[in-house]
Amino acid sequence: MAMEGYRGFLGLLVSALLVGFLSVIFTLIWVLHYREGLGWDGGALEFNWHPVLLVTGFIFIQGIAIIVYRLPWTWKCSKLLMKSIHAGLNTIAAILAIIALVAVFDYHNVRNIPNMYSLHSWVGLTAVILYFLQLVLGFLIFLLPWAPLSLRALVMPVHVYSGLLLFATVIATSLMGLTEKLFFVLTNPAYSTFPPEGVFANTLGLLILLFGALILWIATRPQWKRPKEPSSTLLQTNGGAAEGTEGSVAVNPGNNLDKSDSELNSEARKRNFALDEAGQRSTM
Amino acid sequence: MAMEGYRGFLGLLVSALLVGFLSVIFTLIWVLHYREGLGWDGGALEFNWHPVLLVTGFIFIQGIAIIVYRLPWTWKCSKLLMKSIHAGLNTIAAILAIIALVAVFDYHNVRNIPNMYSLHSWVGLTAVILYFLQLVLGFLIFLLPWAPLSLRALVMPVHVYSGLLLFATVIATSLMGLTEKLFFVLTNPAYSTFPPEGVFANTLGLLILLFGALILWIATRPQWKRPKEPSSTLLQTNGGAAEGTEGSVAVNPGNNLDKSDSELNSEARKRNFALDEAGQRSTM
Repeated sequence: MAMEGYRGFLGLLVSALLVGFLSVIFTLIWVLHYREGLGWDGGALEFNWHPVLLVTGFIFIQGIAIIVYRLPWTWKCSKLLMKSIHAGLNTIAAILAIIALVAVFDYHNVRNIPNMYSLHSWVGLTAVILYFLQLVLGFLIFLLPWAPLSLRALVMPVHVYSGLLLFATVIATSLMGLTEKLFFVLTNPAYSTFPPEGVFANTLGLLILLFGALILWIATRPQWKRPKEPSSTLLQTNGGAAEGTEGSVAVNPGNNLDKSDSELNSEARKRNFALDEAGQRSTM
Repeated sequence: MAMEGYRGFLGLLVSALLVGFLSVIFTLIWVLHYREGLGWDGGALEFNWHPVLLVTGFIFIQGIAIIVYRLPWTWKCSKLLMKSIHAGLNTIAAILAIIALVAVFDYHNVRNIPNMYSLHSWVGLTAVILYFLQLVLGFLIFLLPWAPLSLRALVMPVHVYSGLLLFATVIATSLMGLTEKLFFVLTNPAYSTFPPEGVFANTLGLLILLFGALILWIATRPQWKRPKEPSSTLLQTNGGAAEGTEGSVAVNPGNNLDKSDSELNSEARKRNFALDEAGQRSTM
């Protein structure tokens, strides 16, 4: 199926994948080259899994999960398959996040460093808990077949908003974590003397931010939404929006509206927009 | 003019104002009670203007500027007036941000602390520069009367996206700044021993995050967009979207579409949606 602005989409998608992949590579170089490496020893090697797993899972994989419905090559695949891929990627991200939390709690406990005192930890743990809630609710409401269509239409805008907000919050948390770690470890030479590790890790922070910006742009362009399947076109009589509802928008090009028509249509359009939005968004 | 879901809007608006106001109060309590207070002495008193001015201007006032078009009581006001208020609030935020930057550079220079080495400073300065660019471009394209409607329609989605992204980035930067400052100053007793100042400033971070979440929800609900003025309803023949274009959407409720109609309408609807989106968004 043809996509409006396909070349622009492709350019942004390739950029996002490249920047996301670079973020993961930069994180690996950071812990392997500038820090002590990776291991599961209760020490610094174990701590280092924390940034690696979070940037890989909670940022890169979560970002892909967000835009997976927008890949035009998947538009011929069934909705159920795409939902399963979306849920699967988010589940992988959640599992990696949990292992990343175990790594840092373990590291703290072995060294008798208190847990959960920093703003990074408060926001980060809140994000992980809400991410699991989002995952479970998404599974129950959108993947299992039993939720009524009206419930799906009601929850969809919240699901989309929460997903994007959590993604942005995770990125903000990673920037706090980077900041925290750099001030901890860069003492000799100090972070303020622009040591290579400081400049390198700052660049990693910018890459993560750029990845987030690209994913959020791709995820919020209305013209790149997955088209609804014609077979799912149906209307509910109770005024609720059905998943996949096309609404019943007819376009009369070139027809200038007079003022009263415009007002009437404006009201109708707004109602229709809300229905349509809920229906459309259920593809995301 | 009636607003869909007015009570929900009102509840969220009051919550956002309350949380935003609390963030400013918390920042003031932080610097006046826990830190050294405010002054312009090249020392800690001057530095403290940095968080106060940024939370007040770059977060609270910017947040209000973002949702100002969505206040239903302003829908009877002219578009030009609302644009001027939007631009005016953003200008105030930008001026406060510049004073906040002067405060921290001054503080660093007096104490011979290097500038611009931390991730917080890299992201923060980038955000301020892009915010000024956004302000100037917004002024030239949307406030001055000379830009062609087609240019406005083209730039509007980018303007809206950049505005929300910059707002989110400023919030992320403030969380990094809080993290940095708390690790600097909380040494005896250490941040890790849960001193009152640490818990208080962490709570400030959560308030700022919550304010951002509320503003972003309000700003992205399609049903709360400012309706376009009927007098501005016009259609361009070249297929470009005019500011305020209502499109020409007619709604035929209860009319089930067959497959071929649905496909045709789907294409037309997508095109119309893009036009309508650009037109609608130009009210933001």
